[in-house]
Amino acid sequence: MSLEKVLAHIDDDLENSTDRLMELLRIPSISTDPAYKHDCARAADWLVKALSDLGFQAGTRPTEGHPMVVAHAEGSGPHVLFYGHYDVQPVDPVDLWDNPPFQPRLEKTPGGTVIRARGASDDKGQLMTFLEACRAWRAVNGQLPARVSIFFEGEEESGSPSLVPFMRENAAELKADIALICDTGMFGQNTPAIVTMLRGLLAEEVVITGANKDLHSGMYGGIARNPIHVLSRIIAGLHDETGRVTLPGFYDGVPDLPQQIRHQWQKLSFDSKQFLGDVGLSLPAGEKDRTPLEMIWSRPTCEVNGISGGYEGDGFKTVLPAKARAKISFRLVGTQDPEQIHANFVAYVKSCLPADCGVEFPLGHGAPASQMSTENPAFEAARRALSDEWSQSAAYIGCGGSIPIAGHFKEILDMDALLVGFGHDDDQIHSPNEKYDLESYHKGIRSWARILAGLT
Amino acid sequence: MSLEKVLAHIDDDLENSTDRLMELLRIPSISTDPAYKHDCARAADWLVKALSDLGFQAGTRPTEGHPMVVAHAEGSGPHVLFYGHYDVQPVDPVDLWDNPPFQPRLEKTPGGTVIRARGASDDKGQLMTFLEACRAWRAVNGQLPARVSIFFEGEEESGSPSLVPFMRENAAELKADIALICDTGMFGQNTPAIVTMLRGLLAEEVVITGANKDLHSGMYGGIARNPIHVLSRIIAGLHDETGRVTLPGFYDGVPDLPQQIRHQWQKLSFDSKQFLGDVGLSLPAGEKDRTPLEMIWSRPTCEVNGISGGYEGDGFKTVLPAKARAKISFRLVGTQDPEQIHANFVAYVKSCLPADCGVEFPLGHGAPASQMSTENPAFEAARRALSDEWSQSAAYIGCGGSIPIAGHFKEILDMDALLVGFGHDDDQIHSPNEKYDLESYHKGIRSWARILAGLT
Repeated sequence: MSLEKVLAHIDDDLENSTDRLMELLRIPSISTDPAYKHDCARAADWLVKALSDLGFQAGTRPTEGHPMVVAHAEGSGPHVLFYGHYDVQPVDPVDLWDNPPFQPRLEKTPGGTVIRARGASDDKGQLMTFLEACRAWRAVNGQLPARVSIFFEGEEESGSPSLVPFMRENAAELKADIALICDTGMFGQNTPAIVTMLRGLLAEEVVITGANKDLHSGMYGGIARNPIHVLSRIIAGLHDETGRVTLPGFYDGVPDLPQQIRHQWQKLSFDSKQFLGDVGLSLPAGEKDRTPLEMIWSRPTCEVNGISGGYEGDGFKTVLPAKARAKISFRLVGTQDPEQIHANFVAYVKSCLPADCGVEFPLGHGAPASQMSTENPAFEAARRALSDEWSQSAAYIGCGGSIPIAGHFKEILDMDALLVGFGHDDDQIHSPNEKYDLESYHKGIRSWARILAGLT
Repeated sequence: MSLEKVLAHIDDDLENSTDRLMELLRIPSISTDPAYKHDCARAADWLVKALSDLGFQAGTRPTEGHPMVVAHAEGSGPHVLFYGHYDVQPVDPVDLWDNPPFQPRLEKTPGGTVIRARGASDDKGQLMTFLEACRAWRAVNGQLPARVSIFFEGEEESGSPSLVPFMRENAAELKADIALICDTGMFGQNTPAIVTMLRGLLAEEVVITGANKDLHSGMYGGIARNPIHVLSRIIAGLHDETGRVTLPGFYDGVPDLPQQIRHQWQKLSFDSKQFLGDVGLSLPAGEKDRTPLEMIWSRPTCEVNGISGGYEGDGFKTVLPAKARAKISFRLVGTQDPEQIHANFVAYVKSCLPADCGVEFPLGHGAPASQMSTENPAFEAARRALSDEWSQSAAYIGCGGSIPIAGHFKEILDMDALLVGFGHDDDQIHSPNEKYDLESYHKGIRSWARILAGLT
């Protein structure tokens, strides 16, 4: 089996590979909006067809939401399960897009050619890198260099309600030696990366209730409890002056960064000035005694993601509102326990509640952090393959975001996950004008071809 | 001149008086919505016609917004200037109205007959009590018992942008011995009241800015400054544990309640349990060492009237917002200086601002509190007249709301204002199904007839 020939085939076939991605990008598979239910099904069917053409035994599996796609190809060597998601984020505000989000096109930019469309990076472009790598292997060698299973979901952008039940019900079928996930990014423009640390997430909404209706602040101001004041105090009390979260026991299970990883991260020479400067900021605002990379990769956080209450329109209305609400999320690391932290958070909020105020917690859900054991030989094989492809030593990095699937693979299927991706910070995922660098796509396909070769 | 005959005439003519009010209520003079500009002009013209029929020299006066109505009737005795406003609040949500807001009708309710329409209480019904009192005086005696001028504006519900310039330009014409204002309420169901204390108002919006766009809280959480946290700390710091406002110098100019007024208020036996119970609360939440009536009438306040930032829709979005904003208002008393307090507030907010955050104050406007000197004999005359009409001793009370016109009369025209009104707490002003008790209208007209008699 010749890797060189596979890579050459990938280069020669890039235009066709791109056309196939464009086809998938034209399907508006927005999972959160019921109006696009049929399009989600179409995207799943399109993938089944593509996988079948590659010799996979492929099919859709119904769920209460959008279908799963599961496929298997026999092969020698280790058994890998590749995961991706075919659903995409909504596109609003659609008037901020320079061209229609579901009419993908190649665009020359100062940074190189990009594929512009909703889902180009998250996650259709990324999952297609793996499919096209399989295609090239088959075209050149008639078979894949490993036993490959595929698992695509269509609800990742809407909270994955069917994922865990489906994994539990189909655990035997999905279990492999290792999971491959392509939903992350490079480190900077040229350094390939394997994410070995993923923060977990605990999300909750807090609704503070006071009077049974909005009051006039002239008539009741000074005597009636104002839920916005109560909520502000709760939020203000969540951090101390050094930026630490104040919830009791919050740092239980937060590990110190191992020396080895600390050294490796130092070598990455992360430019936090640039990172913050790109969004108009200049100073790290987190815990006082932590480096920027620790703040975003290996430390837990508490952020208010939204707040509302009272009159929010133009001008002024002297209302004393009946309710105020905030959406609050915690990024978790190490072995922090989402359930325990949720309980402590609820207790804290209740302890701040004056008489006459009520509170509701309508939303709570959480997932623990994931820390990969890099002992599985696939990690070292992937690191070598990526380093070869990008002529730059691949890095084990952390990821501030939460990819719960990695935790589920560990917990439900007792399987490590190898997270490799080719996205960039400026891909505008979840925003207007999403793009994927053509280089990410091309070298992404080549990277997977090399990783598959390395696994055997 | 016989007061008894005037009162009898009022009783006999009540049906016609009510019909005239209904005519005015049918004109949808919503000042804040440009779509109703023509209707505002129609309401002004209707009043000019009505006043001319009563022997006034009456006319509309153009402004950059809606016209003023000014009218004069010669007469012996003191010169009074009666103020009211012919514009009304918007009606939305219109589907919460039981019948169309501009199709007024008499409705029998368990509490008595009410006039149901937008503006029935605020302020068309109230201003018509005075006009109908004048009508009765003229009908019975051929003339009014005092020299009466009238001043109606059409922008009270939209911030009165033309009021102060107009008053300054026409000061000589509008100056009288005392101003009469009918835009307030009774104390409870049966106790007539003269408002001698009005809280002032300082309103401002605070917009905290952080990054130049909304960020992903996974990618930036823990390193980027969150404007919602900053805003929450600012709000949390505005009050101390005893409910006092913490701004430096905030209580400068806040007088202690005079013993005499304290005693009078004690006699009112205000039922704060009932007052709060009606809106689902049970405990006064203001300054620890103050009585409920002080809290709502004679103490300054700081209330957040609205807050917003980040994701406010259903479900969750892990955004780290670029902005957060709050609408904050202060009720002022005594000689508290709105400009000084605004300056101190701005300084406080800026002192809370971490590096990398900006702040905007787009809205600031304020008016000082009004404290009437009750030495003008009109106060005692009105108190006697009201006590006679309602067979209940009239009370000098405070009002938590702000009626800036009273301050303008003092400042621009050096004129005290006698605030007498017949509204009730349940009149639903500014809300759907606004009403005015027919008794308020009837006895309101009789009250003004008595007050006019008492002035001479």
